[in-house]
Amino acid sequence: MDLHDLIVELKEENKSKIVLLVADGLGGLPMVAGGKTELESASTPHLDTLAREGICGLTIPVLPGITPGSGPGHLGLFGYDPLKYRIGRGILEALGINFEVSKRDVAVRGNFCTVDLEGKISDRRAGRPSTEKCVAMCKKLKQIKIPGVEIFVEPVREHRFVVVFRADGLGDRVNDTDPQQVGFKPLTAKGEDVISQKTAEITNTFAQEAGLILAQESPTNMVTLRGFATYPKIATMQQIYGLKSAAIAVYPMYKGLARLVGMDILNAGSTLADQVETLKNSWNDYDFFFMHYKYTDSTGEDGNFQAKVEMIEKLDAVIPAIKSLSPDVFIVTGDHSTPSKLKSHSWHPVPTLISSPNCRTDGVTEFGESYCLQGGLGQFEAKYLMSLAMAHAGRLGKYGA
Amino acid sequence: MDLHDLIVELKEENKSKIVLLVADGLGGLPMVAGGKTELESASTPHLDTLAREGICGLTIPVLPGITPGSGPGHLGLFGYDPLKYRIGRGILEALGINFEVSKRDVAVRGNFCTVDLEGKISDRRAGRPSTEKCVAMCKKLKQIKIPGVEIFVEPVREHRFVVVFRADGLGDRVNDTDPQQVGFKPLTAKGEDVISQKTAEITNTFAQEAGLILAQESPTNMVTLRGFATYPKIATMQQIYGLKSAAIAVYPMYKGLARLVGMDILNAGSTLADQVETLKNSWNDYDFFFMHYKYTDSTGEDGNFQAKVEMIEKLDAVIPAIKSLSPDVFIVTGDHSTPSKLKSHSWHPVPTLISSPNCRTDGVTEFGESYCLQGGLGQFEAKYLMSLAMAHAGRLGKYGA
Repeated sequence: MDLHDLIVELKEENKSKIVLLVADGLGGLPMVAGGKTELESASTPHLDTLAREGICGLTIPVLPGITPGSGPGHLGLFGYDPLKYRIGRGILEALGINFEVSKRDVAVRGNFCTVDLEGKISDRRAGRPSTEKCVAMCKKLKQIKIPGVEIFVEPVREHRFVVVFRADGLGDRVNDTDPQQVGFKPLTAKGEDVISQKTAEITNTFAQEAGLILAQESPTNMVTLRGFATYPKIATMQQIYGLKSAAIAVYPMYKGLARLVGMDILNAGSTLADQVETLKNSWNDYDFFFMHYKYTDSTGEDGNFQAKVEMIEKLDAVIPAIKSLSPDVFIVTGDHSTPSKLKSHSWHPVPTLISSPNCRTDGVTEFGESYCLQGGLGQFEAKYLMSLAMAHAGRLGKYGA
Repeated sequence: MDLHDLIVELKEENKSKIVLLVADGLGGLPMVAGGKTELESASTPHLDTLAREGICGLTIPVLPGITPGSGPGHLGLFGYDPLKYRIGRGILEALGINFEVSKRDVAVRGNFCTVDLEGKISDRRAGRPSTEKCVAMCKKLKQIKIPGVEIFVEPVREHRFVVVFRADGLGDRVNDTDPQQVGFKPLTAKGEDVISQKTAEITNTFAQEAGLILAQESPTNMVTLRGFATYPKIATMQQIYGLKSAAIAVYPMYKGLARLVGMDILNAGSTLADQVETLKNSWNDYDFFFMHYKYTDSTGEDGNFQAKVEMIEKLDAVIPAIKSLSPDVFIVTGDHSTPSKLKSHSWHPVPTLISSPNCRTDGVTEFGESYCLQGGLGQFEAKYLMSLAMAHAGRLGKYGA
């Protein structure tokens, strides 16, 4: 039986409030064997209190050993099996620039490239143009008109941009036109089914027009297109959990992921203080709040252990303000680990705590990787976190008599 | 690969004896954060010795956050995936009154209700009649005869009763006739397939006859029927594990669940001492004994922490008598948690111990939730408990060469 079908069957309504605070890339590693992680090094009196009062454990974002991107990482936390629900690259790219994708869209990742006189690719990234140049080139491509299709061309950075084709009945089973090596012409798009053939035709027309428009440019004189993706068919948080849900995130990607699962996107400002203010102001309007904090990930990606420690301490400082709203269930976790030592996302399980009056005591006294290892939640797949949140909120009825 | 197929492939016969002692609703919660649970508060020297000698852990009855009823809770312990094998409400209701359901039966839960002159329901529970009245009304309904069908009408309590239709080729894909709100007539039963259409016709005739028979009664002048369920298609313990199995349970529901998986139902008397006596007397006749103890659940449901502690201590007192029979594998667990604090079943993992000469030492010295959290079995889905029992009993061969 599908987990969502089970939750839909068992869900009950009440007045409880759930807060899911996601510190992106929260989990870490010691810089030297036997040392402390970033979270263990940080002074986090308020998180420690939550850990003591609540129950701790470690979430496995996807499966043991599997390092997730932001998409699967967050889908798991929202209770969507990240191996079942896959968000295509084109859609993720569009979400990342805050483009509001709709159910009629096929989103595609575009690259500016350089072709020679025979049309063969000589540089797949067109010498990495400036983002300014990218913006200017995208503006030129916006001229392209194809009857019956609305076309959006939006810059990302350097050679990267997003194309969105909006029309009824477009499929995404279309091959990448990027041949992945120089010395070859961009490939012709082909659709694997009728609706994707329609997308492929539009794509080929678009690429041809782009070639004409960019012919006099140098070195950005052609485009390749890849990661064709339609809007995923995905039930909303409201449909699955019966939770009126809101996202309080600063970065576009996370707003986009939250929008995918049907959350309202609140105006979150740009600082943690702004986010907490937003939470307070909208407290009565929602059952579930997803609050996203980026800097634990970005400092980890920078390999800056000390900066990550400081970002964790800044997060700790706002815990009392959130607690003062008396959420029935308060969860602190991350979407994956980003150890400064690795300067990248990793597969390591993520410290997680649930604070609620119905938690079983587990003797954990501090919030950190080693402590969580002894916690009552054990190690579990992140996709079960929402079931636990619902249970602790008293929002799940009994399964079977 | 299905877990049962694997076990069937690997199972081996020997002379070993397995005892599964289920303390219903065993798991608990502290009344105040940081306190002790019922099991941790109880003085359990004999269970502690088993924990020291054996290996401990916590079972997750269904999935994280999911609270099971008795049906799914026990199926899991018997090694049947509770998400795959679902016991319909009608069948469970019949089991609960010790009705011996057969493979030709459709069991249905009935409610006496009150209808007005237009036949619209004015009280879905007919003012909650006394159980005596329920018995009397059921006796009247036993008059109903439908050619080709054997009909059983058995009281449960107050407005609740069970109807069983026994005939060849009856389906259970029939809608509830209870409209779930007053001001509406009972619904007509409709079958979703040919065999269920047959059941629906019988149901409609039964309801019509019931209306005629009860017309002069007040307020129990009509019935609604719901939870249509056939006997589940389920392999027996003998077929899966090769274990000749017996149940020693006092309450009908648990005898019924054991009968579903093919166990012999032994005359268990009414006390723990009777149950142990039954165990002794039938020791040579079976490979596997399921012994059920109800009072850890009922005291938890009552919210009576101290009474639950005492019931655990009473259970502890009979451990030496069971041990004296020298079972090769002795398991103590629960089908779910029933914390006195919540006065209901809950999702919290259940303390579990396996005592056997082949257990790996895990350093656990007492039987309780916090200790089990550090145990060698870790946290695992209850459906794997029987595989572990079989392994410790030396009854599972090697998988692959």
